[in-house]
Amino acid sequence: MSDNKVETEPLAGRKLRASLKRQRQNHVQDEVLNAATALFAKNGFRAVSMDQIAAEIGFGKSSIYYYFQNKGDLLWRIFEFILNNYLERAKEILKERASPTERMRLLIRNHILVLLGHQDWTTVFFRDLSELADDNRKEISKRMREYNGIFEKVYRDGVERKLFRDIPSRVAVNGILGSCNWLTHWFVQKNESDAELIADQLTSLLANGYQTAG
Amino acid sequence: MSDNKVETEPLAGRKLRASLKRQRQNHVQDEVLNAATALFAKNGFRAVSMDQIAAEIGFGKSSIYYYFQNKGDLLWRIFEFILNNYLERAKEILKERASPTERMRLLIRNHILVLLGHQDWTTVFFRDLSELADDNRKEISKRMREYNGIFEKVYRDGVERKLFRDIPSRVAVNGILGSCNWLTHWFVQKNESDAELIADQLTSLLANGYQTAG
Repeated sequence: MSDNKVETEPLAGRKLRASLKRQRQNHVQDEVLNAATALFAKNGFRAVSMDQIAAEIGFGKSSIYYYFQNKGDLLWRIFEFILNNYLERAKEILKERASPTERMRLLIRNHILVLLGHQDWTTVFFRDLSELADDNRKEISKRMREYNGIFEKVYRDGVERKLFRDIPSRVAVNGILGSCNWLTHWFVQKNESDAELIADQLTSLLANGYQTAG
Repeated sequence: MSDNKVETEPLAGRKLRASLKRQRQNHVQDEVLNAATALFAKNGFRAVSMDQIAAEIGFGKSSIYYYFQNKGDLLWRIFEFILNNYLERAKEILKERASPTERMRLLIRNHILVLLGHQDWTTVFFRDLSELADDNRKEISKRMREYNGIFEKVYRDGVERKLFRDIPSRVAVNGILGSCNWLTHWFVQKNESDAELIADQLTSLLANGYQTAG
């Protein structure tokens, strides 16, 4: 395509082409991130090379470096993406008019469903935090405190209204989230309906305990 | 000390010296394992070299190779030690005459106390399984199934007697153990009494749920 052709192309055409290019770039970035996440989750961050990631998606390594500075940058983008995913939905739940009981149920259920929709991402997130650069790790820790803080606030509301058991909210929330996050260690999703079922079972276990009588 | 001196040494003396040597060797092995576990837990298995482990305890690298073939051997011994620790006590609990309710309470409490007594070991155990050699990994997976199997058996007994909520034992047990194992991600023990307190709080949370009314 000659420069001349481009210059005479109507504005709408140029916009469309720019938009398609952006879409393609986003698509490539997503593909790189997905492949990297799967490899990191399986083999560990340090065991995976940029060459392996490139080979996995059938690109040259240079196409990856066009979007990501290095492996550390890739890891940061994985952390950012998955944590934003958890955080945004939790913030929405906090806005809803609902009792602490209903809010906590929604928070737990949502957490499990995001996790099962992004199991590899969550595995990398909780295993490879120590691999992030210092300032990135601090930023992620800050946002994690924000996320846990949402759960803890709802927990304390529940305790205040005598709806929830009076144990320190930090212990309760880490106990609850730990139970959910552990899914990355053992759960293999076979059908799409598995996610809803496991979310129901775990939410009920955590809310009511495993004993039928207190 | 001359060869002559050794030969004329009374049997009791030789036995004592052999026993002291074994004790020293065991002590050195423990020291190496402890130092390696702390470094692996903090920085990840791949990020730590044998040189760093040697430097940590102030030995030459050759003293470590006297006891451990390589870093992989060290990792295997860490896995073996900590899993045996969990497994032996659980088997003892299974022998006790007690209701499923009491047995499950003891199993959970014991799990938390072993974990908090060996937090670095447990961190390495659950994060670096993929770093083990294939046959070692299979062996550990087998023993982990045995350990979880003890919990699941007790859980099913409880469901049969309508003491426990009727959800699949695999989901319940992984939900329970996940909540405990997550302690490695967030809990920093400050006083010795913390362990008992957190064991009580988590056990109660899991048995009765976070809601005060079902």
